[in-house]
Amino acid sequence: MCQRFPVPVRVYLDYDSSENQLFLEEERRMSYLGFRCLEISRWVICGLIGFLTGLIACCIDIAVEKLAGVKYFVVKQNIEKFTEVGGLSISLILWAVLNSSLVMVGAITVAFIEPIAAGSGIPQIKCYLNGVKIPRVVRLKTLVVKVFGVICSVAGGLAVGKEGPMIHSGAVVAAGVSQGRSTSLKKDFKIFEYFRRDTEKRDFVSAGAAAGVSAAFGAPVGGVLFSLEEGASFWNQMLTWRIFFASMISTFTLNFFLSIYNNKPGDLSSPGLINFGRFESDVRTCLCPCLCPCLCPCLCPCGLLGALFNKLNYWLTIFRIRYVHRPCLQVMEAMLVAAVTATVSFSMIYFSNDCQPLGPDQSEDYQLQLFCADGEYNSMATTFFNTPERSVRSLFHNPPGSYNPGTLGMFTVTYFFLACWTYGLAVSAGVFIPSLLIGAAWGRLFGILLPTVTASGSVSIWADPGKYALIGAAAQLGGIVRMTLSLTVIMVEATGNVTYGLPIMLVLMTAKIVGDYFVEGLYDIHIKLQSVPFLHWEAPATSHWLTAREVMGAPVICFNRLEKVGTIVDILSNTSTNHNGFPVVVPVAASDEPGKICGLILRSQLIVLLKHKVFVELARSRLTQRKLQLKDFRDAYPRFPPIQSIHVSQDERDCMMDLSEFMNPTPYTVPQETSLPRVFKLFRALGLRHLVVVDHDNRVVGLVTRKDLARYHLGKHGLEELQLAQT
Amino acid sequence: MCQRFPVPVRVYLDYDSSENQLFLEEERRMSYLGFRCLEISRWVICGLIGFLTGLIACCIDIAVEKLAGVKYFVVKQNIEKFTEVGGLSISLILWAVLNSSLVMVGAITVAFIEPIAAGSGIPQIKCYLNGVKIPRVVRLKTLVVKVFGVICSVAGGLAVGKEGPMIHSGAVVAAGVSQGRSTSLKKDFKIFEYFRRDTEKRDFVSAGAAAGVSAAFGAPVGGVLFSLEEGASFWNQMLTWRIFFASMISTFTLNFFLSIYNNKPGDLSSPGLINFGRFESDVRTCLCPCLCPCLCPCLCPCGLLGALFNKLNYWLTIFRIRYVHRPCLQVMEAMLVAAVTATVSFSMIYFSNDCQPLGPDQSEDYQLQLFCADGEYNSMATTFFNTPERSVRSLFHNPPGSYNPGTLGMFTVTYFFLACWTYGLAVSAGVFIPSLLIGAAWGRLFGILLPTVTASGSVSIWADPGKYALIGAAAQLGGIVRMTLSLTVIMVEATGNVTYGLPIMLVLMTAKIVGDYFVEGLYDIHIKLQSVPFLHWEAPATSHWLTAREVMGAPVICFNRLEKVGTIVDILSNTSTNHNGFPVVVPVAASDEPGKICGLILRSQLIVLLKHKVFVELARSRLTQRKLQLKDFRDAYPRFPPIQSIHVSQDERDCMMDLSEFMNPTPYTVPQETSLPRVFKLFRALGLRHLVVVDHDNRVVGLVTRKDLARYHLGKHGLEELQLAQT
Repeated sequence: MCQRFPVPVRVYLDYDSSENQLFLEEERRMSYLGFRCLEISRWVICGLIGFLTGLIACCIDIAVEKLAGVKYFVVKQNIEKFTEVGGLSISLILWAVLNSSLVMVGAITVAFIEPIAAGSGIPQIKCYLNGVKIPRVVRLKTLVVKVFGVICSVAGGLAVGKEGPMIHSGAVVAAGVSQGRSTSLKKDFKIFEYFRRDTEKRDFVSAGAAAGVSAAFGAPVGGVLFSLEEGASFWNQMLTWRIFFASMISTFTLNFFLSIYNNKPGDLSSPGLINFGRFESDVRTCLCPCLCPCLCPCLCPCGLLGALFNKLNYWLTIFRIRYVHRPCLQVMEAMLVAAVTATVSFSMIYFSNDCQPLGPDQSEDYQLQLFCADGEYNSMATTFFNTPERSVRSLFHNPPGSYNPGTLGMFTVTYFFLACWTYGLAVSAGVFIPSLLIGAAWGRLFGILLPTVTASGSVSIWADPGKYALIGAAAQLGGIVRMTLSLTVIMVEATGNVTYGLPIMLVLMTAKIVGDYFVEGLYDIHIKLQSVPFLHWEAPATSHWLTAREVMGAPVICFNRLEKVGTIVDILSNTSTNHNGFPVVVPVAASDEPGKICGLILRSQLIVLLKHKVFVELARSRLTQRKLQLKDFRDAYPRFPPIQSIHVSQDERDCMMDLSEFMNPTPYTVPQETSLPRVFKLFRALGLRHLVVVDHDNRVVGLVTRKDLARYHLGKHGLEELQLAQT
Repeated sequence: MCQRFPVPVRVYLDYDSSENQLFLEEERRMSYLGFRCLEISRWVICGLIGFLTGLIACCIDIAVEKLAGVKYFVVKQNIEKFTEVGGLSISLILWAVLNSSLVMVGAITVAFIEPIAAGSGIPQIKCYLNGVKIPRVVRLKTLVVKVFGVICSVAGGLAVGKEGPMIHSGAVVAAGVSQGRSTSLKKDFKIFEYFRRDTEKRDFVSAGAAAGVSAAFGAPVGGVLFSLEEGASFWNQMLTWRIFFASMISTFTLNFFLSIYNNKPGDLSSPGLINFGRFESDVRTCLCPCLCPCLCPCLCPCGLLGALFNKLNYWLTIFRIRYVHRPCLQVMEAMLVAAVTATVSFSMIYFSNDCQPLGPDQSEDYQLQLFCADGEYNSMATTFFNTPERSVRSLFHNPPGSYNPGTLGMFTVTYFFLACWTYGLAVSAGVFIPSLLIGAAWGRLFGILLPTVTASGSVSIWADPGKYALIGAAAQLGGIVRMTLSLTVIMVEATGNVTYGLPIMLVLMTAKIVGDYFVEGLYDIHIKLQSVPFLHWEAPATSHWLTAREVMGAPVICFNRLEKVGTIVDILSNTSTNHNGFPVVVPVAASDEPGKICGLILRSQLIVLLKHKVFVELARSRLTQRKLQLKDFRDAYPRFPPIQSIHVSQDERDCMMDLSEFMNPTPYTVPQETSLPRVFKLFRALGLRHLVVVDHDNRVVGLVTRKDLARYHLGKHGLEELQLAQT
């Protein structure tokens, strides 16, 4: 099942920093001034993250606009040339070829160079922030491939957006900057070494994700809330403040450079990659669809459509995982989709006879006259023959009557299936914009049909279908991704009008409730398909009858303070049970029963110890041996070598290792009677990775890990226990 | 020192619900459907909270507008009458009398009926959300007095705002609604009984506070962030989502009813009590003051002014605590301030000769012609002779040249001292608006002077002093209250323009950094003056050398599972050590050393047990005795009777009590070596009230409480240990 993220052994992040002697000594040595400097450098890093993320967003935007511009210009010329003389099939072929070649380039880079860069990357970032490490997800290489792939796939006219990937890009930037080194470049700048731990890194990554959101939608606050909703379980004021700073910087950077690029420096009018344009504050027309009970039935379908989308995509993904996992196949599929998209769009435009008079305002779009009379344009073309962002904006803002219902209906249906087919291809692209587009078309259609259906009395307030487009877009997006708080704020900020908050929120809630009844959100589906042990916010409500005793893994492999090297090596090399944390115990008199807990040591720490051969005998024999420092652990972070790569000679195996100054002497423990929700709360609130279960004499009886908790979830028939892949 | 909140014994909230047998049994009995119903009722409650809070805000606003309108009208008539004939002293007296009589009424209600309703109430709510219970702070009576007091003090022309109190009001509403009963009314509706514990109640109170903020400033997101910044240490998605819902409803309710009141139903144009009016998006003029390095010196003064304000108010408060704590004195002081405010304002207006031509747009203000030529008005009057909200708005939006520098300078200085004197009076009123007003005047002055100072080349971009007013307002407010994230978002939402986010944030940060260098924020000062053990976000940075052993309180008074009633009564009645939590232990062989931990029981639980005489012997003798249920604890919540009120006869003292099914069998414990930051993190993340410290054999050696942790803080000379009042 684990084809999409090729993960041999699942590794988790440890948000609870191991306070061993080395760490404490360092902390105690550090002066107040030292902490101040750390704080300042944190701020600097966040500023950098924001700046770079904004810059990347800017590049993507410009590149896509340029490429798409050229493409549409060429095709348009061609179409106009052949409209009279006939033989539009040539134009179709031209269009299809252009698209699929662009997509091919993108797909090849993704499929062959860095498969993890496929998709929007949001599920991976969610996992990372939740505490599950996905290999290579925050590498520089991934970032490059991602950016390049996005440009190709969006310019290639697929039903995708460039917003989702920004979140991933931001996260990668954050991980890179905060660690002060790059594995891809094999370069270590020897700065920010203090931040080379999971705790710190994860904080910065959430800042990066926030910066990404804020650059994508011009929604700094939404970015912060996204990070908090997905990641930081323990809310810390300063951290949040820094995250906010990063978001602000990133949206401002993007805004600044874009407006310079558009030769309008100073009027900062494009805070995000997509901006919905200004909605004026006359909120009635937008409140009605949500507040009139008569229209509630209109909201459920959005949830339904979202659920349908997810369900179809779920089946499709399973099919892909089974049959389409060879890179060449993936590339071919991508090209196929691109060609089909072009063909469908073309034939839709070709067969539609919806001609609208040219408005002066829409000059920036690529309008096709096609078979319309002079001074008119084909309105189907404004939706299909255009970058998705622009189509969304025109659906929101074009004056009433720009589209006739037939056009919108056809568009909704076709685009729905295209988008559904596209998501999950081996190209890097997001699902936000397609969802918005489907919803907008659907909503606008509804807004047009409504007055004809309802009593014609209150036509005045039903006037503007653009409002319905907005509501529909929100509902569709909510029905697909099922984010709640952050999505509301993002939409509100993108709309730039606070008064739309309530209706948008109500719609999102309806969509979520309706959708959740049928199937999970799209990201959760994809996460579950990788059988990632994802921890939600709370334990299932009805799980109070479970206690730590039932949940924990037992028996536990423990070490003594003074342990034989051979034993350690054997246990670490034992692949059948590859644990990552080992309680350290003091053996009790009767040797058969478990020892008393006195610490917890991680595989990674043991690996470093073995690598530096920190053995008691050696220490005694050659006194010159320098004492191991925290720096050694940090240099090895985060890619500790596998145990196989470490050679331990036969007589070294008989040496002893003293773990006492490297282990965490105060691991969190719970008694066996603790209820699951209580364990869960502790685990989640502190971002733990291992929780030791002890009996009344403090003897180790079990170990609770993330997998033990993620097993249980609330299904249709009460509490269910699902089998997570034993990776 | 504890005059302002009369607190005999400080009580804390227990955010970690005690999972004793009764609780677990109930939870296990409850079906999945049951949990669903609970969830739904949570949503209903939040909706109610939002609605009621919005309604209250609406009433306050209308009442103040009406009263102030009448007052200003009368005075205006009078002034105009006497302007020619002379004898304006009569008008002065009239004005002063009107003001001080209004203020007197407010002050009397506050000082004599409910002193806790004095001030903005934000410090009290901060304490509550932090986990410190302030008696009577969330009673209905407090709410009534608060609302009435605000109306009087604002209409009485004091230098105060009605925004701060909204937060308190929202919190009270929340506490009342969520508990489904009122102590003031002696009425129990027998609903929402499940929510009668600190955990749930605190969640709802944070929702109420958020609703208050959002009604005050029309800032729903800002409200959510305020609650999170102050309260919820453990971020929970659903909770936050509910809080957001409450905020949305409250701002919408206010908006809806106000626009009906203004006969403009449908155009929802007043989302908050104060709205800054629309700032158009040409952001250059507002970016410059913050981004040009040349202007950075201009920001520090704001921090300085804020610090000065706080310092003065600190001394004043100490003076008041010492000498002005008799109610009658407080009332008289309030009246004095009111009279002085009127006099000062009047003489300012009288002696100012700043006449401006009448604009058609400002017809809504009460303009005084006074000695100006016809068709002109006295611009000093627009700031002084007006409700503060309107003055703020006119400072933001009046066209350039509406004020001359002298006016603004005088106004800033006088209003600064008036506001500083006013905050802390025995009237219920907030400090937000005065701060904004001072800052706005200051900023506008700066904006006017700047072009004359700088090279006159770039006059165009310095054009609008209103932008500077906004920046100045933000800086002043930030310098006084020192809130960061939430304040930025509140300001941005009140401005209704996202592009102002970055400059506002930069200004707030500068103000905070500069201000913190000199003195704490105003609220923190007032909290500290009550010597409340307030837990901040993290342990002091340099506290790693402290361990639980040094911090904990020892020896600990423990009970056995089966304890003699006499012992319990004696320990509970011992006033010298009134502990609230007692570890329950299994005695070990050697009787002198401490027993092994097997649970934790609270004073409140013991009280209930004693009240119902749950004694082993009785249970054995009369089998009819009904088993104690969770309901009995909930009915007693939150005001458990004092031990003195419970009579235990001599032979009952010899009975035994079995604590095992009432104690929390799985309290969180830490070993003695745990470092202070680690203890602090556990304590804060889980909202604990007691944390048991055990040795390697699980024997109780100490107990860490909130006071032990709040003792340590980072002063100028590194770590300091401050003496908290032993209450």
